[in-house]
Amino acid sequence: MMNKLFTALGIVGVPISVIGSILQWSAVIMFIVYCVTIVALASIIGRATESLAIVMGPRIGGLLNATFGNAVELIISIFALKAGLISIVLASLTGSVLGNLLLVAGLSFFVGGLKYKRQSFDVHEARHNAGLLIFAVIVAFVIPEVFTHTMNDRDTMTISIGISIILILLYLAALLFKFVTHRGIYQDQDKPNEKKKKEEKPEWGKIKAIVVLFIATIAVAYVSEHLVGTFEVVGETFGWSELFIGVIIVAIVGNAAEHASAVIMAYKNKMDVAVEIAVGSTLQVAMFVLPILVLLSLIFPTSMPLVFTWPELISMVTGVLLMIMLSNDGDSNWFDGAVLLAAYVIMGIGFYFI
Amino acid sequence: MMNKLFTALGIVGVPISVIGSILQWSAVIMFIVYCVTIVALASIIGRATESLAIVMGPRIGGLLNATFGNAVELIISIFALKAGLISIVLASLTGSVLGNLLLVAGLSFFVGGLKYKRQSFDVHEARHNAGLLIFAVIVAFVIPEVFTHTMNDRDTMTISIGISIILILLYLAALLFKFVTHRGIYQDQDKPNEKKKKEEKPEWGKIKAIVVLFIATIAVAYVSEHLVGTFEVVGETFGWSELFIGVIIVAIVGNAAEHASAVIMAYKNKMDVAVEIAVGSTLQVAMFVLPILVLLSLIFPTSMPLVFTWPELISMVTGVLLMIMLSNDGDSNWFDGAVLLAAYVIMGIGFYFI
Amino acid sequence: MMNKLFTALGIVGVPISVIGSILQWSAVIMFIVYCVTIVALASIIGRATESLAIVMGPRIGGLLNATFGNAVELIISIFALKAGLISIVLASLTGSVLGNLLLVAGLSFFVGGLKYKRQSFDVHEARHNAGLLIFAVIVAFVIPEVFTHTMNDRDTMTISIGISIILILLYLAALLFKFVTHRGIYQDQDKPNEKKKKEEKPEWGKIKAIVVLFIATIAVAYVSEHLVGTFEVVGETFGWSELFIGVIIVAIVGNAAEHASAVIMAYKNKMDVAVEIAVGSTLQVAMFVLPILVLLSLIFPTSMPLVFTWPELISMVTGVLLMIMLSNDGDSNWFDGAVLLAAYVIMGIGFYFI
Repeated sequence: MMNKLFTALGIVGVPISVIGSILQWSAVIMFIVYCVTIVALASIIGRATESLAIVMGPRIGGLLNATFGNAVELIISIFALKAGLISIVLASLTGSVLGNLLLVAGLSFFVGGLKYKRQSFDVHEARHNAGLLIFAVIVAFVIPEVFTHTMNDRDTMTISIGISIILILLYLAALLFKFVTHRGIYQDQDKPNEKKKKEEKPEWGKIKAIVVLFIATIAVAYVSEHLVGTFEVVGETFGWSELFIGVIIVAIVGNAAEHASAVIMAYKNKMDVAVEIAVGSTLQVAMFVLPILVLLSLIFPTSMPLVFTWPELISMVTGVLLMIMLSNDGDSNWFDGAVLLAAYVIMGIGFYFI
Repeated sequence: MMNKLFTALGIVGVPISVIGSILQWSAVIMFIVYCVTIVALASIIGRATESLAIVMGPRIGGLLNATFGNAVELIISIFALKAGLISIVLASLTGSVLGNLLLVAGLSFFVGGLKYKRQSFDVHEARHNAGLLIFAVIVAFVIPEVFTHTMNDRDTMTISIGISIILILLYLAALLFKFVTHRGIYQDQDKPNEKKKKEEKPEWGKIKAIVVLFIATIAVAYVSEHLVGTFEVVGETFGWSELFIGVIIVAIVGNAAEHASAVIMAYKNKMDVAVEIAVGSTLQVAMFVLPILVLLSLIFPTSMPLVFTWPELISMVTGVLLMIMLSNDGDSNWFDGAVLLAAYVIMGIGFYFI
Repeated sequence: MMNKLFTALGIVGVPISVIGSILQWSAVIMFIVYCVTIVALASIIGRATESLAIVMGPRIGGLLNATFGNAVELIISIFALKAGLISIVLASLTGSVLGNLLLVAGLSFFVGGLKYKRQSFDVHEARHNAGLLIFAVIVAFVIPEVFTHTMNDRDTMTISIGISIILILLYLAALLFKFVTHRGIYQDQDKPNEKKKKEEKPEWGKIKAIVVLFIATIAVAYVSEHLVGTFEVVGETFGWSELFIGVIIVAIVGNAAEHASAVIMAYKNKMDVAVEIAVGSTLQVAMFVLPILVLLSLIFPTSMPLVFTWPELISMVTGVLLMIMLSNDGDSNWFDGAVLLAAYVIMGIGFYFI
């Protein structure tokens, strides 16, 4: 049902976006139209990717999810980069990390926990992901921040490029580890979840999924480019800083569809899937989308270094430490969710006033 | 026996405090009198609360402990706030966190470990508390520090109020989780510690406990107000900074009675109780006493933001990480205690010279 | 075979070092000669210590390893201290911590993981070490950094001396814990590794080992003193900063032999030994070599405070957090190794450009 709603919103939203942008409707109204349309299109892209992933088998499917999973964010960010809005891009990636780690996981734990006293998820997977979170956020993001403090712009960019390449290589190595060399090695023997996977049926066939993916991606690109153009006016109208627009607004728009499906999974007690969406998506943004954007930025007039502001960095570092502590035991409940949500609200308050 | 000593000290100390303050005895002597009296009164308040808690049953008892457990610190801090000594209040709360986490837990582990090779405590409880420690200290205290750096005083206070409200709400949620929705859920089935609890007998009856609690609280308020007045002279006399008085002296005076009972519990191999006193008290200070003081400070001339100095903040953050690492396996020994004590001494040296 | 190579290199390297330094050969060539000679001598010292340790039994053997294990680094550092190169000494100790934690453990996990799907090591030992790593690096190194920011040099040195003494005392306490009070307490009962130890045969007899240890140590001292003299010219020639020479070059030279044996152990699936070399050596540098050097520096013209630069400190802190997260489950694979190596490369890039 929610899927149908998103499909309808997408089909209606795209033409309205086109008409509104041609007729130059008020920026604030168009900002809302664009946001809703992107949420709907992101849901459609997600379902098309999912369908393709099922058709293509687990390995290529995993790879598809791992590369297209955050396609919408990548596209919005590319247009923001093109417009020279470096700080909004970094802010929206920060927001994506915080949103996935704290908001999505928090809502999933909380909503799932209202129905079930205790929910459990794969503790090996959680620890594997925890190592990667520390690597990406605490090593790869903190090091350039501290080292480039007294450095000129050229060396800062050189370091950023080097670290970006290492992040991408390690992300590919993680896929190799997960889908090839250690596939199933860390899974509990008594949970034959291969069987469960066989039951999955794709929503769309291969051809239809590819066509939908293609069209929706072009539509997202169009709407994103115009969305980016409204930031300045919207920021002035509501008194929102660039940081707040990036960290909270763009991040929620870019991830809303994904968020919804994680919470639904938690409510169905499929915590492994919910956690995979939340943490997997965080890692994908940190280890794939962000470094790709740093490298892509080299072809634009303003290149983007891998250097966050202190508030962004500290929010991510503390968010990662909190999430690791709460997920370390492979067990969740409503209170764990409440803690994550409270942390998200605290950071939201901070970014609003900064 | 120790109880009798404290009772005697309390009964003798209060009149001496009154006489000394009226006759204006030397500030240094009165500082010592006040400190000893408060330690004694804190012990009496603790026993009255304990007795009431047993009489009222586990839920209301837990609530009583959770609100009156740090009543003495709350009272001293209110008088310090009234006197505008914002930085001493923040320092004494820092000291309370460090004292409970490092000194109390350290002494408990060490003394208990001298008698027993290995002592164990509830690992689920330890992890639950670890999550809250990271939330309170690493998220809720670090975020305002970093975000308010370039902010004006009004926004800083607004953020402080917002975070304080969230801390109190989450503290209440934690009580709901512990005493209502998940009571006993995470407890080992083979440890029937309900039986143990039934054996407990209150030291005092309901009426006597309430009367004692009432009188001792008023006495603490009186002595605290005068204690706060001696800080300036004492600091000058001994060459102690405000930070050192707050972090080390006030924190030890306010918690001494509690410290003693934790160590005694550890020596009796009741590590669950010892850890609960140390970590539970830390959480209570961080998530209840401190935010209440921030909100209360709004009615005083100088309001208190939730912004620590860097040395205070870093001490708490590193102390929390150390404690979490050492308690994560639900197992303690003398060496774990030595590590915590060494960390406390290092921080004490730091605060002495700063 | 590798042992014979190192013996030959040592026997050839020392006279070439002497001749080259007398004939004043080019500093860059001599830098390389000195480095190779020290690597060879370090291997010889390591084997002599190992032989003595086996002859003397586990307690004194453990103590020998714990004090002579980083003798070469200690000697190089003493000559650098004498030459007033404080920042190179701190940098090389940073490099030693990073090299042992990230490079050695990373290579061991990676190389071992190429041969075995999963390798396991003692999880109790790993957690015990994790507590010490947090204590040493995150408490004892971070606290002086933050506290001495606004402090004069004298107070900074006083704090440094105090913390150094506490570090040494806790290091001795850790030995007492490991070899006396809790020997074997945390070991799995089903792994009778006492038997394995009995099979070990020393390479050299007691007398020969002592003579070799004596001669090699004198040779290392001689070569180290001359190596330190080449740093300035080498730095200018290659455009390397003092930080880079210390963190990367000196650290690798001082630890190369040790590194090699850890990787060989990992390849033989003796992960407990490999992890012990990596983490044990880190702890020895942080809790014994460094504080000894701080105290020794008092007899030299320039005394060395326990205050790292921010990049050094943050590298160590993040490295420690990463290592703890990855080793917390007592299980390693090639990917864990790749993560550690990637972190080392990122830090190496940072120190190169700084």
